Amino acid sequence: MSMSDQVLDSIDVVDLGQIYNGPYCSLLLSYMGANVTKIEPPHGEPLRDRVKDGEAPEFVMLNSNKEGMTLNLKTKEGKEIFKELIEDADVLIENFSVGTMERLDLGYGDLTELNPELIYAHSSGFGEEGPYNEYPAMDLTIQAISGVMDVTGFPNGPPTKAGIAVGDFMGGIHLLAGVLGALYERELTGEGQFVEVSMHDSVFPTLMSPMAAHFNDDNVPPRTGNRHSGLAQSPYNVYETADGYIAIFGVTNRHWHSLLEVIGREDLKDDPRFESNVKRSNHLNEVDELVEGWTIERERDDIEETLLDAGVPCGPVKKLEEVADDPHLKERGMINEIDHPDYGKISVPGLPIRFSGSDLPDIEPSPSKGRDTRKVMCERLGYSEAEFEELEEKGVF
Amino acid sequence: MSMSDQVLDSIDVVDLGQIYNGPYCSLLLSYMGANVTKIEPPHGEPLRDRVKDGEAPEFVMLNSNKEGMTLNLKTKEGKEIFKELIEDADVLIENFSVGTMERLDLGYGDLTELNPELIYAHSSGFGEEGPYNEYPAMDLTIQAISGVMDVTGFPNGPPTKAGIAVGDFMGGIHLLAGVLGALYERELTGEGQFVEVSMHDSVFPTLMSPMAAHFNDDNVPPRTGNRHSGLAQSPYNVYETADGYIAIFGVTNRHWHSLLEVIGREDLKDDPRFESNVKRSNHLNEVDELVEGWTIERERDDIEETLLDAGVPCGPVKKLEEVADDPHLKERGMINEIDHPDYGKISVPGLPIRFSGSDLPDIEPSPSKGRDTRKVMCERLGYSEAEFEELEEKGVF
Repeated sequence: MSMSDQVLDSIDVVDLGQIYNGPYCSLLLSYMGANVTKIEPPHGEPLRDRVKDGEAPEFVMLNSNKEGMTLNLKTKEGKEIFKELIEDADVLIENFSVGTMERLDLGYGDLTELNPELIYAHSSGFGEEGPYNEYPAMDLTIQAISGVMDVTGFPNGPPTKAGIAVGDFMGGIHLLAGVLGALYERELTGEGQFVEVSMHDSVFPTLMSPMAAHFNDDNVPPRTGNRHSGLAQSPYNVYETADGYIAIFGVTNRHWHSLLEVIGREDLKDDPRFESNVKRSNHLNEVDELVEGWTIERERDDIEETLLDAGVPCGPVKKLEEVADDPHLKERGMINEIDHPDYGKISVPGLPIRFSGSDLPDIEPSPSKGRDTRKVMCERLGYSEAEFEELEEKGVF
Repeated sequence: MSMSDQVLDSIDVVDLGQIYNGPYCSLLLSYMGANVTKIEPPHGEPLRDRVKDGEAPEFVMLNSNKEGMTLNLKTKEGKEIFKELIEDADVLIENFSVGTMERLDLGYGDLTELNPELIYAHSSGFGEEGPYNEYPAMDLTIQAISGVMDVTGFPNGPPTKAGIAVGDFMGGIHLLAGVLGALYERELTGEGQFVEVSMHDSVFPTLMSPMAAHFNDDNVPPRTGNRHSGLAQSPYNVYETADGYIAIFGVTNRHWHSLLEVIGREDLKDDPRFESNVKRSNHLNEVDELVEGWTIERERDDIEETLLDAGVPCGPVKKLEEVADDPHLKERGMINEIDHPDYGKISVPGLPIRFSGSDLPDIEPSPSKGRDTRKVMCERLGYSEAEFEELEEKGVF
């Protein structure tokens, strides 16, 4: 329906992203049609180092559909080549620690002089300003400081990290929204701007439920295991089955009555201990024992089918290996099996945003280190082969 | 620097969002300057129900800067008024379950006929298509099915939910990126489109680390507690202190040697068990006991200061009440203390994306139910007071 095949077909992105945060942002930009040129230092970006030989799977999963070149930004020639790329670019993505680009004389002030239409997008752990702005920004430390750990785990156990890289990915996807907002505004004003996201800021809103419980009632523990954050909904928990676990959410009376029918305890429908969600929440242990007494003797997938048929919301706790092979994610283009020239067969993520005016992206494998350096230098920037080789000998790439 | 004060000053959003997912998307749209009209059913959106009287804090935290009206979309008149609003809108946000709007004859096909420039943004648990598309979409069930639970918690403990609403918020922020991408494309093509996000899809990429560990080595357990997902980095853990916990990430030899100096164990610098990250990862328990033997006797904030001075990355595990009062988040405008007319004093989140061309938003309290219904009907849509009151008596609002 639209005139372009994909949303960002005409957009050029220079990408200094590393590890997860910046690269997730530029991955989605590339999937939306942008031409993304990933620039790595001569030794490769840190994510490549996670395996000794060949490609780290994380690198392969986060760098599909990108051009790849190396460039030594500490050399005079490297800086000049970088500036040539910036002159024609629409967007720069970088998630170095605060001040890195300024120390290279490649900060926003330097680059906007070359290209006032540039959108300079920076993501860091704690942002440019504020008392924590020089704190080390690993996902682990973000989860600690942001409160994610304090609200994850069981009341009688230690604070626990979420097993997902929530800081990195919340940072990266907020940065994507920032870039797209700035591209929209540039269509109206003709001007670029500096867009900044901090992982710490972007994680904060996700604490909504425990923060509300904290505002409502200071007696609720910060961590409630798999129970509701406010201990105010029941049944709401993860229950053990004969062969795994299942999450059940049966908090309305309609759900509860259906559940009682399924487990053969209609006699409890009028029991005053369980007659409302509030009453059930005052008898959490009794409700959970009742439900788990039934689930523990049955298989996870049978329980799921039975409960869904009865209209009781539930979800099987899928194992990682099941998720890696999930038929729904495959059908939706979120799991793409590719044969990567260096890694071999691997599944890589797709684009979690669907536009009716665009097709889902075709997936091209992540570049080997420096794969496209010569192409960018000679075909795009117009250097001769001899010039390229001279720079190569000098260690510029 | 830009001509408009904020990125989306000229954009009108009709917002049917409920609970967390849609409302987070429209909250950020409103903070970016859009005029967001939140439409609730006559009894209010479900999030209001979480407390008996007054306003639920979650509702207050997610609905700042929005106009609020009620409208009964099941009445003929309600549908007509909704269509009048859509005719002049740029964006519609909704996160009802799949098929709800079609059953009301207000699906994308119906609305795009009225307004071909409309961007219709829909978020759901599992998306429009695929084998799970009718599964119930609570954050709890998304975390179960997506693998988040399988990778969170300790190897000898049960799968554990992340205490944050990762499905809802990853869904909402991906939807925001989708809306902004579609607004950009509309500037080029003049046409709107249908944008879709599923919570399940949007969570999948965050499994990056455990998925890579799964690809690398099937012997690593899916849950590694507070240790590295691949058990391949050390020291990397959360350590108990005299008064809490601290996350320490000292995986390079430089970090490790600094840490040994701080804890007075320089004698171990040449110990072959600990001479590289790989060796340390083969002796995880010994490394962790060594570190925790030192941290357990000291106070969290003293440890933090000592380690940061020594260049060892770490982060205090902040308690929820500390996060609610975090000085960094306050200084950055992420925590805003307001005096809400119905709730009273409360802190609400700000905009985690900073645009150099815009000021941070001023925060206006969330609307009471139906606060702006009359204003929208009479001032924007031009109904007379008499017409408004007649419709009101009919139960249209």
